Amino acid sequence: MRIGIIGVGTVGASVANILRDNKNVITARAGCEIIPAIGVVSNLNKKRDVEIELTDDVEKVLNDESIDVIVELMGGIEKPYEIIKKALKNGKAVVTANKALLAYHRYELQEIAGDTAFEYEAAVAGGIPIINALRDGLTANHIESIRGIMNGTCNYMLTKMINEGVDYETILKEAQELGYAEADPTFDVGGFDAAHKLLILGSIAYGIDAKPEDILIEGIQNISHEDIDFANEFNYSIKLLTIAKKVGKEIELRVHPSLIPTTEMISKVDGVMNGVSVVGDKVGETMYYGAGAGGDATASAVIANIIDIARRGKGSPMLGFEKPHGEDIRLMSKDDIRTKYYLRFRVEDKAGVLAKIATILGERNISIEKMIQKPLNRTCSHILLSTHTSVEKDIIEALKTIEEAGVVTAKPAMIRIED
Amino acid sequence: MRIGIIGVGTVGASVANILRDNKNVITARAGCEIIPAIGVVSNLNKKRDVEIELTDDVEKVLNDESIDVIVELMGGIEKPYEIIKKALKNGKAVVTANKALLAYHRYELQEIAGDTAFEYEAAVAGGIPIINALRDGLTANHIESIRGIMNGTCNYMLTKMINEGVDYETILKEAQELGYAEADPTFDVGGFDAAHKLLILGSIAYGIDAKPEDILIEGIQNISHEDIDFANEFNYSIKLLTIAKKVGKEIELRVHPSLIPTTEMISKVDGVMNGVSVVGDKVGETMYYGAGAGGDATASAVIANIIDIARRGKGSPMLGFEKPHGEDIRLMSKDDIRTKYYLRFRVEDKAGVLAKIATILGERNISIEKMIQKPLNRTCSHILLSTHTSVEKDIIEALKTIEEAGVVTAKPAMIRIED
Ligand SMILES: NC(=O)c1ccc[n+]([C@@H]2O[C@H](COP(=O)([O-])OP(=O)(O)OC[C@H]3O[C@@H](n4cnc5c(N)ncnc54)[C@H](OP(=O)(O)O)[C@@H]3O)[C@@H](O)[C@H]2O)c1
Ligand SMILES: NC(=O)c1ccc[n+]([C@@H]2O[C@H](COP(=O)([O-])OP(=O)(O)OC[C@H]3O[C@@H](n4cnc5c(N)ncnc54)[C@H](OP(=O)(O)O)[C@@H]3O)[C@@H](O)[C@H]2O)c1
Repeated sequence: MRIGIIGVGTVGASVANILRDNKNVITARAGCEIIPAIGVVSNLNKKRDVEIELTDDVEKVLNDESIDVIVELMGGIEKPYEIIKKALKNGKAVVTANKALLAYHRYELQEIAGDTAFEYEAAVAGGIPIINALRDGLTANHIESIRGIMNGTCNYMLTKMINEGVDYETILKEAQELGYAEADPTFDVGGFDAAHKLLILGSIAYGIDAKPEDILIEGIQNISHEDIDFANEFNYSIKLLTIAKKVGKEIELRVHPSLIPTTEMISKVDGVMNGVSVVGDKVGETMYYGAGAGGDATASAVIANIIDIARRGKGSPMLGFEKPHGEDIRLMSKDDIRTKYYLRFRVEDKAGVLAKIATILGERNISIEKMIQKPLNRTCSHILLSTHTSVEKDIIEALKTIEEAGVVTAKPAMIRIED
Repeated sequence: MRIGIIGVGTVGASVANILRDNKNVITARAGCEIIPAIGVVSNLNKKRDVEIELTDDVEKVLNDESIDVIVELMGGIEKPYEIIKKALKNGKAVVTANKALLAYHRYELQEIAGDTAFEYEAAVAGGIPIINALRDGLTANHIESIRGIMNGTCNYMLTKMINEGVDYETILKEAQELGYAEADPTFDVGGFDAAHKLLILGSIAYGIDAKPEDILIEGIQNISHEDIDFANEFNYSIKLLTIAKKVGKEIELRVHPSLIPTTEMISKVDGVMNGVSVVGDKVGETMYYGAGAGGDATASAVIANIIDIARRGKGSPMLGFEKPHGEDIRLMSKDDIRTKYYLRFRVEDKAGVLAKIATILGERNISIEKMIQKPLNRTCSHILLSTHTSVEKDIIEALKTIEEAGVVTAKPAMIRIED
């Protein structure tokens, strides 16, 4: 089986090298030899550590009848979309690790693919075979929820902030120096990368066709010292969680920092590692843990897809389950999300402030579970509290009302609690 | 697709009930309806909570041409072996959760199966799709090691002993009352159940055809208070670990209590839960976590196999890799295992005892990493120490020599360290 690798960068080079280094075991498992026949790059003059024929002519590869599988590892959205479309129309199987592309175009591409293989294990949580687990391992279950730590950059930063008390700006700089974060870190710290992965899992588990702009996405930029102190005091960990959850016939899809009790297994996923917890109605909770990025780990998942194609000849029978159980499943509106909340208010130390806040919360049926007040300086305090289960819309309105009522001296902070 | 369930007990009843309860989603995923057509039990008069036709005539089911898949959930070894052999010869696909049977007969049965499906996801770590991960998700990798916590009874007991200081006898009684341990607990606490699962994983990862009597199996019966104190003091957890590891061309297979640094993810798998850590040469460490037993969790894995058979029509291409890479892989002798060791000696408080012990260890190239001495009463102490990496044979000999030299007042204790 001959493959063409479009994009021979970090992941593409690892794919070519692993196909060479582990050739004997891969051949045994695939049932045939998998030959990295050609690679496409934009700059042919760049020095590279790969032994694969290179070209800068994508069309040549797409039209080469001897190529069975196209592996797209160039990144971007519209360009790879056109390339994959063409490859599938030419009858070639396609494997990609491109979550940004999939966040927007997975349904069109799956439809074009039809019976031809179109696989993307590496697009979600890198080396962890989580798509495999959902599509093959947990098929007896209704998926009740998926909670993932799927952005290594954010998890590295949050772990350092919690364990070592380092502040956000310092740790961001360190992550950039270590190569964990880009010069413009928004894509990672803003939650967008994690959201792309969540959308893919949402399709597989629930057949929900949503785009990034349809769902709640919040990053870790506003996590403060006080929040971390609160978390430590009440035995929570803070993680950027991607959440897909079935509530009646509606599916919640959201990405945001979350307080998680330290007793939960997923709260123990630290540093750059990724972890995904899946609750099935029959199997209960299962969790999957491993490297979410890096050339070799990501290539491990890409090659697993290629081997699977070699074995089965055609693609997995589904992207997700378009209409999984004859049920009319739909995306839940952001407003209707129900969870517990942690709130932080900066207030002046004067009589009636706490009463005012409590009244505004109470009027919207938000009841308080735990509260601590911490002096900040001679005239100001922080009020930190957690609520019982409340409705997102009520919380948003209450925070707005509290801000407008002039009882706080800074914008209130809010982190959702997952327990 | 019509299935016959041989054994409608804890797991068998769950299989029948889940096929009914989750029928719509299972049908969508399998691409056809999966009908639990008939169940076989030994006692037709027993009251059961299942809606499936029952018989006590196995032969009838095996010879029924309308049955496509036989699901063996009766337990035992020789009887199910004969039944599965016959089913496969009659061209029926077979799914089993029977690890004891597989520990002895997996190679014969796989050979008889040929192209017919013969699957057993549920036999290892219950609901966790670990076989799926090894066979499909990690195919690009040479497996460097597998370390599993695969016996919930032992893990429940050890967790309680470590976290709550409960002693072995008390917690065993509690586990028996809760139904986690059998009246005769040897099969679990002696490490045999875990060993059966290890042998299956060893076949999948390395194609090693070993039987329980070929490998090192030690249970948790001799873990003492002092060992737990040592573990707590030096930040270790104690787990009954199953270990499969490739060292050169040899494969270590062993089951024994292990000290694991509490920083490692697998050390955090507590209570009745199972966890399996797999290190691949390219993907690095991945870990899989979930319920290792229970009717529904185990049935979830059984049904995943059935759905897979419905989709693919035939079995996975391999049991393991008989000769995986053209390499001549063989089982490592127990004597040659190399790891770190924790040793505990009960000694009289008199001059020269420690020197004697240290000399005997030194003569066998066993060097000490950490040591503490703890008074036990007016005349006796415990010497607790950990070694640098040593050879199993040397340790066994040293312990024997120390015992024979009369410098200890009780049989020395030893726990291997995994870090
Ligand atoms: N890196 C990871 O850890 C990771 C993890 C999971 C998923 N992914 C996904 O995998 C994909 C690849 O990531 P990467 O880190 O390997 O990227 P990368 O290192 O930037 O490599 C991109 C490759 O594509 C080539 N390329 C880009 N635009 C091209 C064009 N228009 N025509 C021809 N070739 C072009 C580049 O050529 P030149 O070499 O000539 O510049 C380079 O070889 C992305 O979709 C990413 O999201 C990456
Ligand atoms: N339970 C778990 O959590 C779990 C987890 C993983 C794997 N497993 C494996 O799954 C298998 C089944 O376990 P289980 O807990 O479900 O066992 P179980 O509750 O004891 O059920 C055994 C069933 O087999 C029937 N049976 C036994 N011998 C028979 C015979 N000679 N002829 C006809 N029927 C016979 C019994 O009939 P009667 O009902 O009439 O007695 C009963 O229905 C075992 O191999 C076990 O190792 C179990």
